[in-house]
Amino acid sequence: MKPKVLIVMGSDSDLPIMEEASKLLAEFGIPNEMTISSAHRSPDRTIELIRKAEKNSVEVIIAGAGAAAHLAGAIASQTILPVIGVPINSSPLQGFDSLLSTVQMPPGVPVATMAIGKSGAKNAAIFAAQVIARKDAKIAKKLKDYKKKMAYEVEKKAKALSNHRQGKG
Amino acid sequence: MKPKVLIVMGSDSDLPIMEEASKLLAEFGIPNEMTISSAHRSPDRTIELIRKAEKNSVEVIIAGAGAAAHLAGAIASQTILPVIGVPINSSPLQGFDSLLSTVQMPPGVPVATMAIGKSGAKNAAIFAAQVIARKDAKIAKKLKDYKKKMAYEVEKKAKALSNHRQGKG
Amino acid sequence: MKPKVLIVMGSDSDLPIMEEASKLLAEFGIPNEMTISSAHRSPDRTIELIRKAEKNSVEVIIAGAGAAAHLAGAIASQTILPVIGVPINSSPLQGFDSLLSTVQMPPGVPVATMAIGKSGAKNAAIFAAQVIARKDAKIAKKLKDYKKKMAYEVEKKAKALSNHRQGKG
Amino acid sequence: MKPKVLIVMGSDSDLPIMEEASKLLAEFGIPNEMTISSAHRSPDRTIELIRKAEKNSVEVIIAGAGAAAHLAGAIASQTILPVIGVPINSSPLQGFDSLLSTVQMPPGVPVATMAIGKSGAKNAAIFAAQVIARKDAKIAKKLKDYKKKMAYEVEKKAKALSNHRQGKG
Amino acid sequence: MKPKVLIVMGSDSDLPIMEEASKLLAEFGIPNEMTISSAHRSPDRTIELIRKAEKNSVEVIIAGAGAAAHLAGAIASQTILPVIGVPINSSPLQGFDSLLSTVQMPPGVPVATMAIGKSGAKNAAIFAAQVIARKDAKIAKKLKDYKKKMAYEVEKKAKALSNHRQGKG
Amino acid sequence: MKPKVLIVMGSDSDLPIMEEASKLLAEFGIPNEMTISSAHRSPDRTIELIRKAEKNSVEVIIAGAGAAAHLAGAIASQTILPVIGVPINSSPLQGFDSLLSTVQMPPGVPVATMAIGKSGAKNAAIFAAQVIARKDAKIAKKLKDYKKKMAYEVEKKAKALSNHRQGKG
Amino acid sequence: MKPKVLIVMGSDSDLPIMEEASKLLAEFGIPNEMTISSAHRSPDRTIELIRKAEKNSVEVIIAGAGAAAHLAGAIASQTILPVIGVPINSSPLQGFDSLLSTVQMPPGVPVATMAIGKSGAKNAAIFAAQVIARKDAKIAKKLKDYKKKMAYEVEKKAKALSNHRQGKG
Amino acid sequence: MKPKVLIVMGSDSDLPIMEEASKLLAEFGIPNEMTISSAHRSPDRTIELIRKAEKNSVEVIIAGAGAAAHLAGAIASQTILPVIGVPINSSPLQGFDSLLSTVQMPPGVPVATMAIGKSGAKNAAIFAAQVIARKDAKIAKKLKDYKKKMAYEVEKKAKALSNHRQGKG
Repeated sequence: MKPKVLIVMGSDSDLPIMEEASKLLAEFGIPNEMTISSAHRSPDRTIELIRKAEKNSVEVIIAGAGAAAHLAGAIASQTILPVIGVPINSSPLQGFDSLLSTVQMPPGVPVATMAIGKSGAKNAAIFAAQVIARKDAKIAKKLKDYKKKMAYEVEKKAKALSNHRQGKG
Repeated sequence: MKPKVLIVMGSDSDLPIMEEASKLLAEFGIPNEMTISSAHRSPDRTIELIRKAEKNSVEVIIAGAGAAAHLAGAIASQTILPVIGVPINSSPLQGFDSLLSTVQMPPGVPVATMAIGKSGAKNAAIFAAQVIARKDAKIAKKLKDYKKKMAYEVEKKAKALSNHRQGKG
Repeated sequence: MKPKVLIVMGSDSDLPIMEEASKLLAEFGIPNEMTISSAHRSPDRTIELIRKAEKNSVEVIIAGAGAAAHLAGAIASQTILPVIGVPINSSPLQGFDSLLSTVQMPPGVPVATMAIGKSGAKNAAIFAAQVIARKDAKIAKKLKDYKKKMAYEVEKKAKALSNHRQGKG
Repeated sequence: MKPKVLIVMGSDSDLPIMEEASKLLAEFGIPNEMTISSAHRSPDRTIELIRKAEKNSVEVIIAGAGAAAHLAGAIASQTILPVIGVPINSSPLQGFDSLLSTVQMPPGVPVATMAIGKSGAKNAAIFAAQVIARKDAKIAKKLKDYKKKMAYEVEKKAKALSNHRQGKG
Repeated sequence: MKPKVLIVMGSDSDLPIMEEASKLLAEFGIPNEMTISSAHRSPDRTIELIRKAEKNSVEVIIAGAGAAAHLAGAIASQTILPVIGVPINSSPLQGFDSLLSTVQMPPGVPVATMAIGKSGAKNAAIFAAQVIARKDAKIAKKLKDYKKKMAYEVEKKAKALSNHRQGKG
Repeated sequence: MKPKVLIVMGSDSDLPIMEEASKLLAEFGIPNEMTISSAHRSPDRTIELIRKAEKNSVEVIIAGAGAAAHLAGAIASQTILPVIGVPINSSPLQGFDSLLSTVQMPPGVPVATMAIGKSGAKNAAIFAAQVIARKDAKIAKKLKDYKKKMAYEVEKKAKALSNHRQGKG
Repeated sequence: MKPKVLIVMGSDSDLPIMEEASKLLAEFGIPNEMTISSAHRSPDRTIELIRKAEKNSVEVIIAGAGAAAHLAGAIASQTILPVIGVPINSSPLQGFDSLLSTVQMPPGVPVATMAIGKSGAKNAAIFAAQVIARKDAKIAKKLKDYKKKMAYEVEKKAKALSNHRQGKG
Repeated sequence: MKPKVLIVMGSDSDLPIMEEASKLLAEFGIPNEMTISSAHRSPDRTIELIRKAEKNSVEVIIAGAGAAAHLAGAIASQTILPVIGVPINSSPLQGFDSLLSTVQMPPGVPVATMAIGKSGAKNAAIFAAQVIARKDAKIAKKLKDYKKKMAYEVEKKAKALSNHRQGKG
């Protein structure tokens, strides 16, 4: 099935973070493809990936990168597809550099920036689903269920904590 | 005409920033509505606005706030609509607090965070248009034109600089 | 016995931090209850907890959360009970994000913010006791004793260090 | 009337910030006294003020200071009264130094830290009122009214914005 | 005369900063050209500028940009010419974002980063001259003279200060 | 022998850092005493230590503390003896909080602040020796020798590196 | 009279900050000399100044500089005289760069770092006086008087505030 | 063969970082020499190294240091050779201090600053090669090949990821 979301990461070392996005999209039943391309080491490949994605009717692009993280911005400079950026914590500055490099985009070229690291990769998947849900009621339904499930799981954990403590008391 | 984008800001002092988003949406021909509601001072009103937006088929919500900027996150906790956050620089910490409060969302509840201040407000509008363009080819066309115009304007300014300097030379 | 302090945390992973508060309250003989609720994943449950706490004559609420830590602020937006916030260091930004998200509250909705992590959780308990001590002389007495004990323990450790060094000398 | 809240500031240049707290306490009908004392320049006076406050049945102490802001911590080291700290933005580091010096207290000696600057001074007053409201139902009533008024004012401003824009439209 | 140094800036608002580099290069007798191109708003133009520079035997490229400053990195990804980056302070984060976006380049694609703002623009010119001086002894001579002049001017100012104070004494 | 330098630390967990100062002072033949006292947990003991030090002709006080590190400042507020502050990295903020709390002292009450952690503890000892050397020529001689030895050791290490590489070459 | 304190600043633009140190030393009756020398622009002159200071029995050197502030460290690398560093806020990073460049000295070469800007310049003077007071009882006496005067002035300002408010009441 | 690049590091503990530069220069066939010298502990040796490098026709100097990293700036103050700075992450502040101490050079004395740590050391080597390539066509050829190889390796890794996932699917 043709991917609806393209996930690009700057280096194969970003895979443990970015596959969180892929897994969650799979859970929502949204076909997606992960690949590697660097804004700095393979700029031509990055442009080719965008052109191919546009031809193949990809709906959303997710880009994750560390340090001076230009990947999401470089992609956004080449397309009007929604681009979601995931800053990755891979330099000594703890993701602070990748966050600012991703979020502080100049007017005209937005990158929808998520939290640093795994939280951000997961939320990139959910946000991509929210965009797709604007024209796919099934995905909208799944997102509503996911939201309910999250609330339910909080309650379940609260109950477990309460039982555990009463058992101790 | 019913608004497709709801713009909420935490305080009326945020208006000079957030009306950049409204103006740009108007330029793209996307009906939008601006209002004020605070996650902290008017939490009930914030929830009502979301419910009303969902009923009225709003496609995207943009939320701008300063300091411990919870507004976008509070909205995202209540809806599966895409929520775009604009951190506003209104405390002595120069928007650093509002950026982190907006972008570092926990897994499950994404906020698409833009740059601090006016750049972010403009990009929120463009990103909202990019989401709407996934099902509205006219908006997609306008976004492509906007992208071309931006590149053209850079060239025009470069030419002006070049002429100015040759005149001096 | 009905709890006088409600301790809410955003996630069960915050338990090792937040139970420091519970233990110290127990030491002061102040009944307390710990539970889990997320401002973002379970906003309705969070409101219910506050309503129930108000009915049950809870005196103080302690809220601990990490990343874009909105929990304390979300609770404070719904009640006039004193709310104490504990920023938790659970993202790559080392608690810096949770600190700013908790402390930089807009005028009108205070959160009494403590230090990041375990120090903050312990101090949340002591501060809750200080609030309760305003109408409970027994707790006031215990706080005074605790203060003396702290000073005494510093002296004891200083003596141990001194003896140890003279032994070596 | 005897003050129930003592407001101490480290320097007379902090007065424009800290009198926000005094004004708001007056609005709530809570007698309060403002004075100046420095943890570093007048340590003995600082201790005397605390002893006098304890004798005079002060309920809460609010302390505002800038730079390496030790005032709130120095007071908290000497009393079991609840101490609220207001970091003041008076050095080139924009309040970042005073925030960390106030909030990062070691375990055992809590300071209830508010936001940097005027927002924090106002919230210090509200939080002091919330503590006093635990044993004074009239203050509790005033706090509830204040909360309603805040929500109402947000709505009023939202209406004004809406009318203004329809007038333009 | 053909330019030996190409100075690119992301926006015409960067001109007051970047013309410091141009002026200083002129002082060293190094022909240079200033132009505008944005990594994000005009990515194709940016690539064309690099290709043209390479054909025209440009020796060094200086790139100045603000916010998520990708310009220097985007250029460095396309050429083996030495690229010097000047972070510009144009967002609320005071150049902190542009510094990290420029300096934290991944291995393989260096950007020689200078200080934020005018100091950096001047130093970019001197550093470009130092590179060119590796094969142009006249420029090397001028750089040595410049270094002596700087030391001499410090001494002159020290003397002026000394005289001024003795006059007062 | 009576100590000439008093080393105070806020907690016994600071010992591994602060004993670096004690060891180096011993190397210089400067009698010194280490003890524990907290500005916040044992404020009275802290004042007593200062009074005793003044009586016993202590020349310099070194104070090391973490988090909202008030210890050095609290001591400096009570004496005209030179006070050297060592910020200790013991909170999640990596010594950033203790650095600002120590160095940003208000005018009138200086603390001579050293680097965070062990480097700072060693330098506190050397700086204390430099102060004492102003009236003790033997210590001055030892400091000069120490300086020469440092330079010599750098050369020795450089030689070792060079030999090692030639052996490999 | 021969200066006992040498005040060096990196640029004549630092004079409004550094003359605070000179004025305060004059108040204490300590002869001092101000001059300009840059660690980077006039390294040879910087070394000559140190040699001359050592010959002329200078007791303490105060060095103020901005940005990558190496001046104090460069001086400390060449002498065993106590060197006091004053970070100056002259770059867009608000003194944060000069603070870290001054305080984070490697083990072996201490710089006694003061607060950023005027507060730091004043405290540099007081600290220099504290060092000199170790062998000059007159200066010790003046420092004690200064300390009393500071406390007295706080009290005077507190009284003025109190009178002013009672007048209003 | 005479070294064309001199690599200086502040301490032997910086070797694991800085030898990345040496290895990569060797890969490019550029003779280089590594040595140790500290701006602060061996200032005279540092100056001698520069003089010797200038006599021996060294083309570029690379300097790596941590904390208040003055090494690159101290070298740049003494020579017109291009100086490349590598900030090293060796203090609790995670390289943030060494970055600012290296990059924020005052006008007149540029240091070409690279990323913190190993990425920066590698890029220092590549940048040195880029400078040398301005007069050595063989090195230019090698740099072009290196750039192609980087892009090729990204593609190879992308293919491996794609194959791996299809194997799983």
